[in-house]
Amino acid sequence: MSSTGYQGESVTSLESNSASKVDVLALLERGRELSTPLLREVVDRLAPPMDTVAAYHFGWIDAAGNPAAGDGGKAVRPALALISAEAAGAPPEKGVPGAVAVELVHNFSLLHDDLMDGDEQRRHRDTVWKVHGPAQAILVGDALFALANEVLLELGTVEAGRATRRLAVATRKLIDGQAQDMSFEDRERVSVDECLEMEGNKTGALLACAVSIGAVLGGADDKTADALERYGHHLGLAFQAVDDLLGIWGEPAETGKQAWSDLRQRKKSLPVCAALQAGGPASEKLAELLAADAKSVGKEEEGLTFDEEEFATRAALIEQAGGREWTSEEAKRQHATALAALEGVDMPDSIREQLTALADFVVVRRR
Amino acid sequence: MSSTGYQGESVTSLESNSASKVDVLALLERGRELSTPLLREVVDRLAPPMDTVAAYHFGWIDAAGNPAAGDGGKAVRPALALISAEAAGAPPEKGVPGAVAVELVHNFSLLHDDLMDGDEQRRHRDTVWKVHGPAQAILVGDALFALANEVLLELGTVEAGRATRRLAVATRKLIDGQAQDMSFEDRERVSVDECLEMEGNKTGALLACAVSIGAVLGGADDKTADALERYGHHLGLAFQAVDDLLGIWGEPAETGKQAWSDLRQRKKSLPVCAALQAGGPASEKLAELLAADAKSVGKEEEGLTFDEEEFATRAALIEQAGGREWTSEEAKRQHATALAALEGVDMPDSIREQLTALADFVVVRRR
Repeated sequence: MSSTGYQGESVTSLESNSASKVDVLALLERGRELSTPLLREVVDRLAPPMDTVAAYHFGWIDAAGNPAAGDGGKAVRPALALISAEAAGAPPEKGVPGAVAVELVHNFSLLHDDLMDGDEQRRHRDTVWKVHGPAQAILVGDALFALANEVLLELGTVEAGRATRRLAVATRKLIDGQAQDMSFEDRERVSVDECLEMEGNKTGALLACAVSIGAVLGGADDKTADALERYGHHLGLAFQAVDDLLGIWGEPAETGKQAWSDLRQRKKSLPVCAALQAGGPASEKLAELLAADAKSVGKEEEGLTFDEEEFATRAALIEQAGGREWTSEEAKRQHATALAALEGVDMPDSIREQLTALADFVVVRRR
Repeated sequence: MSSTGYQGESVTSLESNSASKVDVLALLERGRELSTPLLREVVDRLAPPMDTVAAYHFGWIDAAGNPAAGDGGKAVRPALALISAEAAGAPPEKGVPGAVAVELVHNFSLLHDDLMDGDEQRRHRDTVWKVHGPAQAILVGDALFALANEVLLELGTVEAGRATRRLAVATRKLIDGQAQDMSFEDRERVSVDECLEMEGNKTGALLACAVSIGAVLGGADDKTADALERYGHHLGLAFQAVDDLLGIWGEPAETGKQAWSDLRQRKKSLPVCAALQAGGPASEKLAELLAADAKSVGKEEEGLTFDEEEFATRAALIEQAGGREWTSEEAKRQHATALAALEGVDMPDSIREQLTALADFVVVRRR
């Protein structure tokens, strides 16, 4: 396996599965276009200076307050929420409040996680707590979470109540996942199963909610919504497996984060857990180094500040122990499980093709 | 006006208004007893270590993890939520999920506000961020907020959807209020009207929600719920006026907070705003001192660290300028407005008497 470049051909080969008729970038663009007006409208409700801080976070203005073109992320979740409405036979517009609510919860968690993790960069820009201070990061995160519930519940429908309940459960799982993720940093060893549970909470739950919330707003029954959630859950795990690879081997210029960011934060991500669980000389050497790292930093320490070579050594050991290969394969397994979950759902073929194409996109993204 | 002791007789005289048949402490105890089992059940759902951190915050365990008798606060909000259900002709039990949801939101805001404000003590104990670190304070706060929505929406009723919407709006106002409160710290001057708006958001909105949420869950129409909200809003303002007096002249042994805590944090609370707005020599001298304070601390500074005498000087100037007297009168005005709001609501006399007695209690509490 090559140690340069990202992923090799193993995941890329999935591209041949994708329904070539589907224009994924157009679907993402539609999600952004249909959801942004409502997102901006509700963010504008915030009292100053929270409206400005939120606008900075979303990339609508720069740190000086001037309008910015803005990289608000890929907006996979809004796109999924609209397709989700269509999966239930409703027009995509029906999914818009769900798309906005999920996007608000996602960004609430980014604001708080960046502060808790001490991350200084996101989407190639300084994070909110770096620019506006920790208090604003906390407060605006809280406000986005409150807005998420508000934007759904002001619909005043039974479906909105069901959608908000699913969002509340997903949000709590997301918070559970962050708690697990942080607690793993202080442990020498975490099993692959524990890591998958954490990632299912931290990433799977909200993606699952995005894929089901449009359908719920569109009047789908629980069986359909649950099947869509399963697709989203496994898609989230596939997405996170790719993210874990990027967290170690990704280029800062492409990821928008610091180099070795996951190793720096002592994250027990999938490649690390798989490598530790594999056994053998590289695995044992890695375990020794990580145990020494854990002892060398205090709990209040934000991260490790080794030089490049020391991170490179750890990355190489993870790879030698098979952690990189296993994670890459796991992304493919989760991708396949996600697609299998769609088989039980009665929906138009064109929608199934879109969900298939989006799954492919999520796994091969950012190469 | 005496500068020792709390409040003089001006507010105390309200006691003569209270319906003497009503046992307020028994109502508070009932609120605690009926709501605590569900509160504990939902808090138990949190992933470790968040369950432990939350249990510490609620006073169920001490910092070492041993069971504690716990001072979970006066539990005015749960008591109000149960009476609220009865105001709509429903049994008090109907208000329990509302009581728990409001209590969860209240405690979410305490966890985050203590961290943002740098408060080290609450209810005579170290605050969560002091004991378990800032990240846990953020995370457990988030989790309590998510649980608040969950506990209501899992009822699965239309009424629960309406109740959750009211809670979402109240929560956002509460966050707006905290944002305004913090922004006032950096300003030399804040008008009384601005201060009242901030306090209506920060304290009035959630108390208003507590007094209406039980009724909504009990099937009350919007007119009844809105009238109860008005009572709660003004009760909240009366409560906050008293709190503002305690924040300057309260005894640490009684309030559980640091001496001069509001002056220390440069809070523009009601007595300060009223004193600044009053004009005259004491008002002008106070304005000079506060302007100098504002220049002498950096934005990152958590608070002022003057000696006792300097805080005493400021407190005396606020009192000489009439800020203490005005705030005490304002508490009575808000108390009267709260009671007037009840006149439009059709409810059993016994319930009206309970709400009257609780309003009296809130204004004369902690002397």
